Amino acid sequence: MSVDLYQLTAPVFVHNLKNLSAILKKAAKSAKARGIEPAVLLNGRLAPDMFPLLRQVQIVTDNAKGCCSRLTGAEAPVFEDGDADFAQLNQRINDTIKFIKGLKKHQFPDNADDAIEMRVPIGVLHFNCEEYVKGWAFPNFYFHLTTAYNILRHNGVEIGKADFLGMVPGMTATGKIAKMMGLPQAKKKSKVAKKTKVARKGKNKTVKQAAKKTARK
Amino acid sequence: MSVDLYQLTAPVFVHNLKNLSAILKKAAKSAKARGIEPAVLLNGRLAPDMFPLLRQVQIVTDNAKGCCSRLTGAEAPVFEDGDADFAQLNQRINDTIKFIKGLKKHQFPDNADDAIEMRVPIGVLHFNCEEYVKGWAFPNFYFHLTTAYNILRHNGVEIGKADFLGMVPGMTATGKIAKMMGLPQAKKKSKVAKKTKVARKGKNKTVKQAAKKTARK
Repeated sequence: MSVDLYQLTAPVFVHNLKNLSAILKKAAKSAKARGIEPAVLLNGRLAPDMFPLLRQVQIVTDNAKGCCSRLTGAEAPVFEDGDADFAQLNQRINDTIKFIKGLKKHQFPDNADDAIEMRVPIGVLHFNCEEYVKGWAFPNFYFHLTTAYNILRHNGVEIGKADFLGMVPGMTATGKIAKMMGLPQAKKKSKVAKKTKVARKGKNKTVKQAAKKTARK
Repeated sequence: MSVDLYQLTAPVFVHNLKNLSAILKKAAKSAKARGIEPAVLLNGRLAPDMFPLLRQVQIVTDNAKGCCSRLTGAEAPVFEDGDADFAQLNQRINDTIKFIKGLKKHQFPDNADDAIEMRVPIGVLHFNCEEYVKGWAFPNFYFHLTTAYNILRHNGVEIGKADFLGMVPGMTATGKIAKMMGLPQAKKKSKVAKKTKVARKGKNKTVKQAAKKTARK
């Protein structure tokens, strides 16, 4: 069983947009607690010729709705790109989530190699759906999502990698980390191990690597 | 046809690692041209408690090889995490690419819902392969990739979105943009349009949206 275009995109965008929304709420609180005008954070940038936080967030929503709209042919909501406060950005994120959640699996192409096109002012870009998602939609989406996060970190907002990743869908844990991260306990180890073993029949030996500590980095 | 785990991961990591390598070469040139010690860029960070460029790049390679190793069970190369110059970082990226390119499609699980586990010092994280790639491997990979890029932009290195995206695999174009971006010309429009039409039979009307200009942002 492979990953279909719906599963590959819609729930991923929704999950990350929810994380972004929670991050922006923390940013608004941080501004208030530190006596900083929200506009200072919203206009923060990492370089003079990079977009400020405000625009990064707007583009993140555009990337998500644009991708789902192109894949399904469904008309995406249109948002004004002017000035906005934190509440308005969160509303835009919520509206994007609502649009994506309203799409049904059957609206997405069955074939990942179906053609897709993206019109730009001076021409048309052509891809197949798979290459579009992997080489255009995801890199752009994560680029602006991470840059929004980085602008806030650069401005002293106390957020960390856990905020960026959110509660990873389907992730469970065993050991101390389960309690520490508030994760659901994995099923009995023996069952999971058995499933893993079956899954890897004929594959190379599983390498169990210790994950690097990258919290808040 | 859906996207299998091999196609979803291996070529995506290779493509983005090549882009990162090209970006680091530009950074090294920029440092030289501006009379800046390379170590200044390599130790640049966006916040005091975030990792510097050097470590971001190391983590990007760890994310890529770690994901492919976990999915296939193949043993990944081990890299030293100490100090490094630009040439050594590029060597590490090249070694990671070599490892991933050496993996065969049949080594990856056929079923995206096969169980996978990641050992950390205080426990084990459990996912199925699909959720692991979508909710852990990709967000982490793109996070550190984008942060590496952002550190360089923050330090005045002249790179742009085109460097980050690279030459998107499978992307072609029609119109002025093809020449401007040095892209392959798309097949005759009629053929592409026909394919698109067939693909979208029974779907909603295609919405052709103008892409936002996000170059160098």
